[in-house]
Amino acid sequence: QDWRSRTKVEIFQYVVLKWTLALLIGLGTGFVGFFNNLAVENIAGFKLLLSNNLMLEDKYYQAFAVYAGCNLVLAIAAAALCAYIAPAAAGSGIPEVKAYLNGVDAHAILAPSTLFVKIFGSIFGVSAGFVVGKEGPMVHTGACIASLLGQGGSHKYHLTWRWLRYFKNDRDRRDLITCGAAAGVAAAFRAPVGGVLFALEEAASWWRSALLWRTFFTTAVVAVVLRAFIEFCRGGNCGLFGKGGLIMFDVNSAMAVYSTPDLLAVIFLGIIGGIFGSLYNYFVDKVLRTYSIVNEKGPSIKILLVITISLLTSCCFYGLPWLSSCTHCPDYLKDQCPTIGRSGNYKNFQCQPRHYNDLASLFLNTNDDAIRYLFSSGTEKEFHLSTLLIFFVTMYCLGIITYGIAIPSGLFIPVILAGASYGRLVGTLLGSLSNLDVGLFALLGAASFLGGTMRMTVSLCVILLELTNDLLMLPLVMLVLLVSKSVADCFNKGVYDQIVTLKGLPYLETHAEPYMRHLVASDVVSGPLISFSGVEKVGNILHTLKMTKHNGFPVIDEPPFSAAPELYGLVLRSHLLVLLKGKKFTKQRVMTGSDILRTFNAFDFAKAGSGKGVKLEDLDIKEEEMEMYVDLHPITNTSPYTVVETMSLAKAAVLFRELGLRHLLVVPKTPGRPPIVGILTRHDFMPEHILGIHPHFGHHK
Amino acid sequence: QDWRSRTKVEIFQYVVLKWTLALLIGLGTGFVGFFNNLAVENIAGFKLLLSNNLMLEDKYYQAFAVYAGCNLVLAIAAAALCAYIAPAAAGSGIPEVKAYLNGVDAHAILAPSTLFVKIFGSIFGVSAGFVVGKEGPMVHTGACIASLLGQGGSHKYHLTWRWLRYFKNDRDRRDLITCGAAAGVAAAFRAPVGGVLFALEEAASWWRSALLWRTFFTTAVVAVVLRAFIEFCRGGNCGLFGKGGLIMFDVNSAMAVYSTPDLLAVIFLGIIGGIFGSLYNYFVDKVLRTYSIVNEKGPSIKILLVITISLLTSCCFYGLPWLSSCTHCPDYLKDQCPTIGRSGNYKNFQCQPRHYNDLASLFLNTNDDAIRYLFSSGTEKEFHLSTLLIFFVTMYCLGIITYGIAIPSGLFIPVILAGASYGRLVGTLLGSLSNLDVGLFALLGAASFLGGTMRMTVSLCVILLELTNDLLMLPLVMLVLLVSKSVADCFNKGVYDQIVTLKGLPYLETHAEPYMRHLVASDVVSGPLISFSGVEKVGNILHTLKMTKHNGFPVIDEPPFSAAPELYGLVLRSHLLVLLKGKKFTKQRVMTGSDILRTFNAFDFAKAGSGKGVKLEDLDIKEEEMEMYVDLHPITNTSPYTVVETMSLAKAAVLFRELGLRHLLVVPKTPGRPPIVGILTRHDFMPEHILGIHPHFGHHK
Repeated sequence: QDWRSRTKVEIFQYVVLKWTLALLIGLGTGFVGFFNNLAVENIAGFKLLLSNNLMLEDKYYQAFAVYAGCNLVLAIAAAALCAYIAPAAAGSGIPEVKAYLNGVDAHAILAPSTLFVKIFGSIFGVSAGFVVGKEGPMVHTGACIASLLGQGGSHKYHLTWRWLRYFKNDRDRRDLITCGAAAGVAAAFRAPVGGVLFALEEAASWWRSALLWRTFFTTAVVAVVLRAFIEFCRGGNCGLFGKGGLIMFDVNSAMAVYSTPDLLAVIFLGIIGGIFGSLYNYFVDKVLRTYSIVNEKGPSIKILLVITISLLTSCCFYGLPWLSSCTHCPDYLKDQCPTIGRSGNYKNFQCQPRHYNDLASLFLNTNDDAIRYLFSSGTEKEFHLSTLLIFFVTMYCLGIITYGIAIPSGLFIPVILAGASYGRLVGTLLGSLSNLDVGLFALLGAASFLGGTMRMTVSLCVILLELTNDLLMLPLVMLVLLVSKSVADCFNKGVYDQIVTLKGLPYLETHAEPYMRHLVASDVVSGPLISFSGVEKVGNILHTLKMTKHNGFPVIDEPPFSAAPELYGLVLRSHLLVLLKGKKFTKQRVMTGSDILRTFNAFDFAKAGSGKGVKLEDLDIKEEEMEMYVDLHPITNTSPYTVVETMSLAKAAVLFRELGLRHLLVVPKTPGRPPIVGILTRHDFMPEHILGIHPHFGHHK
Repeated sequence: QDWRSRTKVEIFQYVVLKWTLALLIGLGTGFVGFFNNLAVENIAGFKLLLSNNLMLEDKYYQAFAVYAGCNLVLAIAAAALCAYIAPAAAGSGIPEVKAYLNGVDAHAILAPSTLFVKIFGSIFGVSAGFVVGKEGPMVHTGACIASLLGQGGSHKYHLTWRWLRYFKNDRDRRDLITCGAAAGVAAAFRAPVGGVLFALEEAASWWRSALLWRTFFTTAVVAVVLRAFIEFCRGGNCGLFGKGGLIMFDVNSAMAVYSTPDLLAVIFLGIIGGIFGSLYNYFVDKVLRTYSIVNEKGPSIKILLVITISLLTSCCFYGLPWLSSCTHCPDYLKDQCPTIGRSGNYKNFQCQPRHYNDLASLFLNTNDDAIRYLFSSGTEKEFHLSTLLIFFVTMYCLGIITYGIAIPSGLFIPVILAGASYGRLVGTLLGSLSNLDVGLFALLGAASFLGGTMRMTVSLCVILLELTNDLLMLPLVMLVLLVSKSVADCFNKGVYDQIVTLKGLPYLETHAEPYMRHLVASDVVSGPLISFSGVEKVGNILHTLKMTKHNGFPVIDEPPFSAAPELYGLVLRSHLLVLLKGKKFTKQRVMTGSDILRTFNAFDFAKAGSGKGVKLEDLDIKEEEMEMYVDLHPITNTSPYTVVETMSLAKAAVLFRELGLRHLLVVPKTPGRPPIVGILTRHDFMPEHILGIHPHFGHHK
């Protein structure tokens, strides 16, 4: 199935197609990203305007009813989509994409229904005022789009294109999905370079230089698409989508110089941010474990949980601003304060004319706008200390309890919100001790929280720089990220790794575990070995396929086909199914040779999409055919990777991981024994499996 | 030698040391980068001032004599350093670093003498007015610093630190050198993120997420160091190092909007840039081949070549401005035109007062300043078309013939110079057709040339953005890079890959060649196989080590130690030498067991630096000891990676490359034969070797 064996025309087709797909992924993700923003800005904007107008007429209870009611309806819509149509769409999606790119084909992660729910669920969820982001879902959306395009549409909806058959293999599919994930980040943050780095640092498990280039192309397309749409909207064609849409925070700190006390303040910020970040991970983990028990009880319970959180959020957002006192509008602002209409930092809320409520300005707004206000510079006096403290605590707690409910929910925005308010709080407290602007402090606080929870460095740094469009802050952002990541790494793992572990996805770590050095490959081989001979009875094959769930079987040549039993290769379940469906059986035990392949199209054996391909139930083998023979030689992979049974398990794990294998054959060291000892799969390298067989290594860990 | 087998204290020591080293590499490279700039600005500035002052007094011949004389002296100094002390320091250094990170331990690439010559040779070379950059040499310098620090100084100069013994293995060393290369780029361009991406995209062959983080830390340190020094120099403490030093071009195009004709113009620019870029590679290759013949004739010939090029360059730079007519200074510039003193765009040259010579402004300046003028915006009228054309042709040709002479010479600056003048030329020609600024056109032209020669994408894009400090140009730069790289890839390979091939370094490509699919592992095994038995006679070992240059030998257990001959493992030449030096021999053929290792320090077997470690000549084995036996079991690696002889060569090559192996054992498929068929090394996967054995695959290529 290697493209090198194809003709020149086919290679050309392949290359053109691959670039076309990258282009399409970019266009698609860019479009979805824009549509998402447009919808959120309009829905949330309409909701906020409505309640705001009622507030202006002093109808406070009606305003709350409208606000909470809108939130509830939107929340129920999002939860219903998630609970009934595609449960896989709940949550961030980044852990799932990460696991997929590590080689885990989990069910329905990238199905069309997931895509649909992810897009609309995310729009409803964000509009409903939850403390969730649209960034994680965008990454998942990008990956889904890539997967759908790569599979040539969906069988189910009769949208297949035959000429996409080239991409039906693991590697091309992973490449496309990496591009999709990068495009998602690029669309969410308008950060093309950050998207590439994110795909590289967080998502992909294998990486090639050529992939870097293609990913870069995809994110460039996304950037161009977004820019075109924004140009289009500048003409006022997009309803309430004004300057507010598509986050791009202008911090614009003219202060590019900083002294030693500033650096110390930044390091302090990083340390505390790291501690808060790892605490965040700890709580998210606990809450997720609780929610997963609750969510198992059925879709209606899921929706009930969403309703509870939605009401709680509405109460907090509407109730807490009453605690804050009113501030007189600064004199230099004439018409902008208090804000009438959709955007602006100065919400009137319950205050007198010419006064504003700073807490309401943060709470009764979209999350993007709140971040923008927190990041704004030259506005030291705008927020009270108590306001920032209340906002920080609320966002921190709501962020923790919101993740895990049955709606698509990103983690970036909650963490940025909590981090930015924390940073601004510290900046205001330090006051005259530091020359840095409070807006810059907010940015650094957000960076410290992001570093503490997600444990990315380069990609986060670039994303933040692209968001704020100021390269001169680079060293400070770098410093704070390094400090907070180092601090947080002392306590626990990154939040995405935690979620992957929690979901039980068999994720292969880059490094082998220490105890693996004391084991050899044959120590972890489990279960009875099932193998076929080179020419096997149809009945045997069928029986084996029915009885086991293995995906690969060793093929062993026995006399009379070879002098002694010897390993011929490895045959895949899917290929066996295709072969059996072709019914090229013989009465005698003879080798038919590779001629029988002529009757198959070469692409019949290509890897089918999830839920596609020949199924065991599709086969219709008659009783007399069961006793016939079929030659497995033509469909066997004759060069499987093998290790000797005495190979150190750590080395075998490295081999498995680095080459991205699915099966690794273990062969005996000494002659005179059966030619194969066992077969290692992904599950055999999982700590749970190994420690199950060899529990005495458990306490070494 | 895995750190996991160490105690907790040792692991802690190791981690702290590794971060300390990253810090030191950052500090060292940052300091060298600054020193380099400072020296170049002062030396070149002094030279230019001197000749400029003579010009003002109308002493044209004396001015030329001073100018050409200074250039010549500096050029001879650089060439003498290169020719006599460290020939490995000539050229860019990036190909060598790239090959080293691919696993090629070429001689003297990272020796201390190379470092010394690279720093001073680069300073003299750049000051001498050659069309060379200091960027490539900075990368090499960073790598050298990293290597020296990692080796714990140099044995030769008695500067070893014992506690650096942890890093005496391939992997840690490669990690450090990757950090060094990234730090070099960061120091050269003040582009920390670009440095990380460069290390990732161009330099490193293996990459781990943890490495990303460490590299990022190193470049962040470099950025902070450079910023501190620049602050220091702002006080005027650095002589002629004024605003000019350390490139950071402010393009600052306020025009962030562009229309369809602009995009078409950019694509056109990219296509032509790609063609010129690949032509550049073609000519550089030809010139390098010629020069390598010339340079082989001895150091004095090398210096003669440098002198020729230096005189040619001086003549061009001083002579060509006479062709240009004088321009009247714009009225709005009062005192700045014509420029008196070191910096400023308006060189008086031979003109009347209140006139300036635009070609002299470009030629009689440092390369950095010339680039800054070309990138400057809002200056459409400043350069004549003929000026740009002359400058472009001169730079293109001089750049080609300068690379390859015996001085440290980077390729970035010549390519940027040629590209920027080309871009500005196109921009001026298009004139009113496009809204884009000519300064932006110059930047895009430079990007197109860089893409066409170096074939990097993401890292170049980020470096250019960090250089110009304007993120809004991202989509245009991306577009032009993609176009020019795609166009140039149709013609030939990237310039660094060409140089690697030209130098005959056995660089392993990521992909296996197509013809490898038709071969199996045993097809390329060459030469008689030399193996040891588990307990071997000292004389045999010594004789084998003397006769061959192999670095690894299979160890085979024979009766009476095992029932049948069986493969025990692989032993390294260096370990054998240490063992022989230890002289734990026995009279009888018995296994001594691992007790003998107690007499060795665990770090005796650690990989020594180049030119260090036990040598064959150091051994002093007496005649009677030759007949004694030594047990090889304790020092044998019992889990070498193996492939079956029928494994497809393409798959074996992937295994070899991905795992970064140095030896791959080939074992027989059928029992009853010797337990090992052969051993594959890096050289066995080189196309020349394979096509030498199987010439009929040559025309398939």
